[in-house]
Amino acid sequence: MFHNFIHEYLRGLRTNKKKIINDPVFGFITIQSELIFDLIEHPYFQRLRRIKQLGLSCIVFPGANHTRFEHAIGAVFLMRSAIGDLRIKGVKITEAEAEAVTAAILLHDIGHGPFSHALEYSIVEGLVHEKISVLIMEDLNQQFDGRLSLAIQIFKNEYPKKFLHQLVASQLDVDRLDYLRRDSFFTGVTEGVIASDRIIKMLNVRNDELVVEAKGIYSIEKFLIARRLMYWQVYLHKTVLSAEFLLVNILKRAKELALAGVKLFATPSLSVFLENKITLEHFQNGQTYMGRSLLAVFAGLEDDDVIASIKQWQFHEDQILSYLSGCLVNRKLFRINLQNEPFLESQTDSIKKKIVQRFGVDGDDVSYLLVQDSITNNAYLTDDNKINILQKNGEICEINEASDINLSGLSHTVRKYFVCYPKELDIR
Amino acid sequence: MFHNFIHEYLRGLRTNKKKIINDPVFGFITIQSELIFDLIEHPYFQRLRRIKQLGLSCIVFPGANHTRFEHAIGAVFLMRSAIGDLRIKGVKITEAEAEAVTAAILLHDIGHGPFSHALEYSIVEGLVHEKISVLIMEDLNQQFDGRLSLAIQIFKNEYPKKFLHQLVASQLDVDRLDYLRRDSFFTGVTEGVIASDRIIKMLNVRNDELVVEAKGIYSIEKFLIARRLMYWQVYLHKTVLSAEFLLVNILKRAKELALAGVKLFATPSLSVFLENKITLEHFQNGQTYMGRSLLAVFAGLEDDDVIASIKQWQFHEDQILSYLSGCLVNRKLFRINLQNEPFLESQTDSIKKKIVQRFGVDGDDVSYLLVQDSITNNAYLTDDNKINILQKNGEICEINEASDINLSGLSHTVRKYFVCYPKELDIR
Amino acid sequence: MFHNFIHEYLRGLRTNKKKIINDPVFGFITIQSELIFDLIEHPYFQRLRRIKQLGLSCIVFPGANHTRFEHAIGAVFLMRSAIGDLRIKGVKITEAEAEAVTAAILLHDIGHGPFSHALEYSIVEGLVHEKISVLIMEDLNQQFDGRLSLAIQIFKNEYPKKFLHQLVASQLDVDRLDYLRRDSFFTGVTEGVIASDRIIKMLNVRNDELVVEAKGIYSIEKFLIARRLMYWQVYLHKTVLSAEFLLVNILKRAKELALAGVKLFATPSLSVFLENKITLEHFQNGQTYMGRSLLAVFAGLEDDDVIASIKQWQFHEDQILSYLSGCLVNRKLFRINLQNEPFLESQTDSIKKKIVQRFGVDGDDVSYLLVQDSITNNAYLTDDNKINILQKNGEICEINEASDINLSGLSHTVRKYFVCYPKELDIR
Amino acid sequence: MFHNFIHEYLRGLRTNKKKIINDPVFGFITIQSELIFDLIEHPYFQRLRRIKQLGLSCIVFPGANHTRFEHAIGAVFLMRSAIGDLRIKGVKITEAEAEAVTAAILLHDIGHGPFSHALEYSIVEGLVHEKISVLIMEDLNQQFDGRLSLAIQIFKNEYPKKFLHQLVASQLDVDRLDYLRRDSFFTGVTEGVIASDRIIKMLNVRNDELVVEAKGIYSIEKFLIARRLMYWQVYLHKTVLSAEFLLVNILKRAKELALAGVKLFATPSLSVFLENKITLEHFQNGQTYMGRSLLAVFAGLEDDDVIASIKQWQFHEDQILSYLSGCLVNRKLFRINLQNEPFLESQTDSIKKKIVQRFGVDGDDVSYLLVQDSITNNAYLTDDNKINILQKNGEICEINEASDINLSGLSHTVRKYFVCYPKELDIR
Repeated sequence: MFHNFIHEYLRGLRTNKKKIINDPVFGFITIQSELIFDLIEHPYFQRLRRIKQLGLSCIVFPGANHTRFEHAIGAVFLMRSAIGDLRIKGVKITEAEAEAVTAAILLHDIGHGPFSHALEYSIVEGLVHEKISVLIMEDLNQQFDGRLSLAIQIFKNEYPKKFLHQLVASQLDVDRLDYLRRDSFFTGVTEGVIASDRIIKMLNVRNDELVVEAKGIYSIEKFLIARRLMYWQVYLHKTVLSAEFLLVNILKRAKELALAGVKLFATPSLSVFLENKITLEHFQNGQTYMGRSLLAVFAGLEDDDVIASIKQWQFHEDQILSYLSGCLVNRKLFRINLQNEPFLESQTDSIKKKIVQRFGVDGDDVSYLLVQDSITNNAYLTDDNKINILQKNGEICEINEASDINLSGLSHTVRKYFVCYPKELDIR
Repeated sequence: MFHNFIHEYLRGLRTNKKKIINDPVFGFITIQSELIFDLIEHPYFQRLRRIKQLGLSCIVFPGANHTRFEHAIGAVFLMRSAIGDLRIKGVKITEAEAEAVTAAILLHDIGHGPFSHALEYSIVEGLVHEKISVLIMEDLNQQFDGRLSLAIQIFKNEYPKKFLHQLVASQLDVDRLDYLRRDSFFTGVTEGVIASDRIIKMLNVRNDELVVEAKGIYSIEKFLIARRLMYWQVYLHKTVLSAEFLLVNILKRAKELALAGVKLFATPSLSVFLENKITLEHFQNGQTYMGRSLLAVFAGLEDDDVIASIKQWQFHEDQILSYLSGCLVNRKLFRINLQNEPFLESQTDSIKKKIVQRFGVDGDDVSYLLVQDSITNNAYLTDDNKINILQKNGEICEINEASDINLSGLSHTVRKYFVCYPKELDIR
Repeated sequence: MFHNFIHEYLRGLRTNKKKIINDPVFGFITIQSELIFDLIEHPYFQRLRRIKQLGLSCIVFPGANHTRFEHAIGAVFLMRSAIGDLRIKGVKITEAEAEAVTAAILLHDIGHGPFSHALEYSIVEGLVHEKISVLIMEDLNQQFDGRLSLAIQIFKNEYPKKFLHQLVASQLDVDRLDYLRRDSFFTGVTEGVIASDRIIKMLNVRNDELVVEAKGIYSIEKFLIARRLMYWQVYLHKTVLSAEFLLVNILKRAKELALAGVKLFATPSLSVFLENKITLEHFQNGQTYMGRSLLAVFAGLEDDDVIASIKQWQFHEDQILSYLSGCLVNRKLFRINLQNEPFLESQTDSIKKKIVQRFGVDGDDVSYLLVQDSITNNAYLTDDNKINILQKNGEICEINEASDINLSGLSHTVRKYFVCYPKELDIR
Repeated sequence: MFHNFIHEYLRGLRTNKKKIINDPVFGFITIQSELIFDLIEHPYFQRLRRIKQLGLSCIVFPGANHTRFEHAIGAVFLMRSAIGDLRIKGVKITEAEAEAVTAAILLHDIGHGPFSHALEYSIVEGLVHEKISVLIMEDLNQQFDGRLSLAIQIFKNEYPKKFLHQLVASQLDVDRLDYLRRDSFFTGVTEGVIASDRIIKMLNVRNDELVVEAKGIYSIEKFLIARRLMYWQVYLHKTVLSAEFLLVNILKRAKELALAGVKLFATPSLSVFLENKITLEHFQNGQTYMGRSLLAVFAGLEDDDVIASIKQWQFHEDQILSYLSGCLVNRKLFRINLQNEPFLESQTDSIKKKIVQRFGVDGDDVSYLLVQDSITNNAYLTDDNKINILQKNGEICEINEASDINLSGLSHTVRKYFVCYPKELDIR
């Protein structure tokens, strides 16, 4: 009698649908559409409860344990506000479009795995989350009998009313409006707070494109500066970088060992990605592992898989793996040096020499103990998907031209270089 | 060269000690004492980063992912405020006492395992976290060369200045002052917010006992009511209860299978607790597992171990285990009925019958699909550790007598009864 | 051409009606109805911008400068929420009723003069603001061609759907929901914050009466406790009381002098009330002063009239008037003693003796330097307009019965006695 | 016995000094110094309770009723934080310096009259508040037996440790840190919120000058953008401008009439300024009016004097005065047109013609019904008192060079032109 019932159970069982979600950022969020409700209930979406929005940032900002689940729900709330406010201004948005664009924002991050950026740098190289998002949406579309077709069109920017896509993905999308505010809230970096409600009230549509009304120009300036601040102070915080690249190296080492046939504990889902070279084609070809599609396996991969495995690797016999794992689990992070210019080869050579001396590792393995990379940040991109201002005379121009301060600096790419290495090297 | 270095590494390596923690609830928290700093750095404490303060409550309140780590740090902040304010009023607190009582509050929850209440109901039956806390503190005391002796004395209420213990554990301790405010913040249940700074400003000491100055009486009333509200609306929220008892049954089933020799995946730390009947004696006797002391194994057990294992159990061949696990992972929780009176046997019998019919389980296994229990709540206990009010004439009396509303209702134990069972049973 | 144009100007001139108000408590408040907009624009309502909500409380809570204008707008916001939420639950509220009940809450305090309670104790004795509110509403109703008839009916509780009146005036009306939250916000007494949005979401209607759904019971308990706290900590704060009774005595003295023919500066509107014994009949009989109806003169009386006059009285030759005025303007308030029992005659006699000695005033005038009175507070009244709980079984019972704590204490009237006298008397 | 006692009373009577102020922005503010306490108690400072910080801005932002009193207290709070944080970094600040710089910030705005900017444009032309502030401080210094000498030195930037003056008055002074945050709080323009605590934590001193540590650079950028936003959205809000220039014209007209001998009601303090041409010399020469020094008369001039007088002027026989007064009191503000270029003479001529036609006023009086002016704003001034950044290598450079975005736009002066005229002119 248990047989087969899970499938049945997972669909539509809940008759008394719960509609109000308590969000510490926006208060009560009401889910009004049944489709949105059913998507939230789906295991593919429920897994986002177990994937942190900011990955390892909680190592620096202890409050930053919020998840991709909350972010997606918050973005739904803001999308609903934006739709309401645009309609008041006379912008035509049909009920079907409203539901589709809401579904699109709900699912915009569905393809993220745990510690997404670190994963993409290590065990699923070349597998960007946007691609997986589309695969999952298409899978859901089948399960929901095509009811997500319009949402997918909007998500892929294939729908004529471009502003709908822009609400989902542009330099002023509700994705950013939610995450900046939410990340500020949970990290305690209050300076990143943006007035999402005010910005939304300033939106309008001209020629099917999103524009900001002229009086909103100062709010946009402030939004761009706040975003820039959040990048440098939170997302690219040097200690967070150090932790993330430590994680990258741990996963790389584990995969190297696994591929070489060394036995190591891992949760079943993670094992699949350690023991196999996975590419996008494996997803598309419908390859199965452990009797499940690769997509299903991926959908079972969450923060806990990574953490539970690394904790055990502290006791692995491979000294590099155990060392790196211990450093992450016990927060003994690598020293990180960050600067505006590339490091000289002489500098990194000197560090390498110390690593060889101290740890007795040979040539190739040195790279596990020395991270060398760079990060870049643009507060505003001028080439693509500009933020457009609707002036009082009805003309439209780019924010850069409309603002009477020079925002060109914001569109300039800032690159910073860093090296990370064990703190012991500093000790004599 | 890797050999043995971890131990060395884990102690005192960090020379440039980071002192400011960004807390979304209280803002910047400065850690002033080196002992406190070193305790925070210790792996025993770092593990609290991976144990949620409210266990499964995030299943109802998606923002409630905050951890025991943050709570302990917040309590340290409040303890420092309380010490400062009491000193201003002339209460004598030596530097050593101040550090000790701060260490005591920092470590007061150190013995919590993941999903603590559920665990104590299932795989570590009879093993309350307070006992483990003391064991860990004593272990730490050895590692820190006796520098925690005074903290432990205070924690155990063996120190003459009783008010120090009362700040750590009483009906108006800084533990409660932090968790009520913090849990309100992260759940979004704003009604639970208490004015912790105001209450602290009202504290004083008479005859070595904590008292509240008369003008603080309304704040205390409000504190008691807010706590009561948080119990019913968050901690004992019926959906949270349903999820927690589902978890209890999953762990019970897993342990039953493991003890019966059935193979099932679990992370190594969890395996120890599934495959062995663990009692307090095992901790005290210094029993080792996987080459580590039981305490060390326990200290490696975190939320991720439980979640990663349950996720895999969805695919286990034992139908009860896989069914229950799927329900929790995919948030298909049991229906819960809650009422003020015990359920009649006829009512539960009728549910049992349906369970047998629907799931084909036999007698003993029915209990995995039917939870039957009760919960109680007291907003205020009159028998022990009363909240005392310092009146303007210098006399001391209990809050119950001092308040001109009748608080006796608050000290009345409220008990509620509930049953939980699969939602399918409601469907015809 | 200037001739007569003001009248014309005051009506309907503004074509581009401004619809959004920036409220620090609730954020953007949108005014959707033209009637409400026009009422807000009316001079009778604009005057509320110049009348502080909490009178002299700002003497203790420097942030408490918020006005009756803001409170009324905030109450409109909450009323709109309540209407929306009730309609979702199926409660029938026609558009006309919605507008009327909103107008009623907008105007519920329109009859307040400056420092209302002090005024009612002194120069307009026996003239309660509720009566004036009705007079003004009726005057407005004429000006608006009867469009306020339904609002007045609801205000006077003469409309069959009683819950509409209860939203305007009852123990759980939106008046209280706004003022508790707003007064908390501006005084900084964060403990008074109530979850107005949550309470509103819990409202429902049965038999045309307002009820609270059972799960809202803890919120109501907390609301009652918060209100009680605000009474004792803010509204009846002893220093505020001292300031208010000082103001009462100043106004009494000024009126005594004015009636006796002593010349004293006052703004023209205030002069009317100082130089004449005004009763409700004078309003109803259409008596005119300075060429304006008494109602128009009253509507011109604001905080600034009182303050500007008292400031000048500091230099008046009447020593009592100048002394009292100097005390208020320069915040040299009277000492206030507050206790639960009446003061003994011997105690007050001793103070009187000192007053005579120190200030050389004779018998009758002593009362200007010695205030003797009492205050009472009930957190909850049981006799009238009870808060009713809608239980899960559909039955309705009073909050007192539904709550499992004993709220009877809250309905007990607490009376406190006080005397105020110049601080100099304490000095030897 | 009343004789002479006020003077005695006003000094030092209060023995039980109240030390904690409840501030809705920063919470509890403790006044620790007796000098600061006594200054707050002084009538010169108490008057700030009756002068709004933002003048007529409350006509647009109804919550903006906060006063100069609260701002000064808030600035004291931030100054105390800054002193504490700088001392932790090893900056030497003696107790005397700490008290002096705190007194200086407490009194920095003491010379403001009611609706300061409007007043300076009309009845006290050429009399800037900074000058009066110094006069009042010097008067207080005499009353306090020279205890303010150091504070005055710092205020005038005559003290060697320049950073103390910079904390009081510079582009990053605690004045701005308080007012931006406070004005954001009360207007509800949340985007203006700045992280004052974070900026203060970033301050340091090099060569006796204030510098910002490098990691604070993003906070400074955000501070500058927030300030710019507050200027355009609040301080220079077009409707606020319209109201302020209406007030200017009212006061100008009243003064013109008064000087011409026309009788008009005014409170005594205001009368002095209407009936006499007052210059700075009158203050310095110790001229007296109504038996009081001009400074004392000025210190008696508050918002209520202006409002109470204008209210009465609605009924004055001079049609221009009564018209303008009615417009302000009843919020029938002038239409305002704002643009980046100067208005053409042909445009303003056309408005003038309409004014003559409609109101029948003759040539000179037209200017009362047509305001023509311009406003300017610089977010950051490069010429003077630059914000300096302390880089990691110990070098100091200006924010403009240190920031990797181009802040030059912020130092560019933006000028906007506007005309205001009666709304009736738009109606046909």
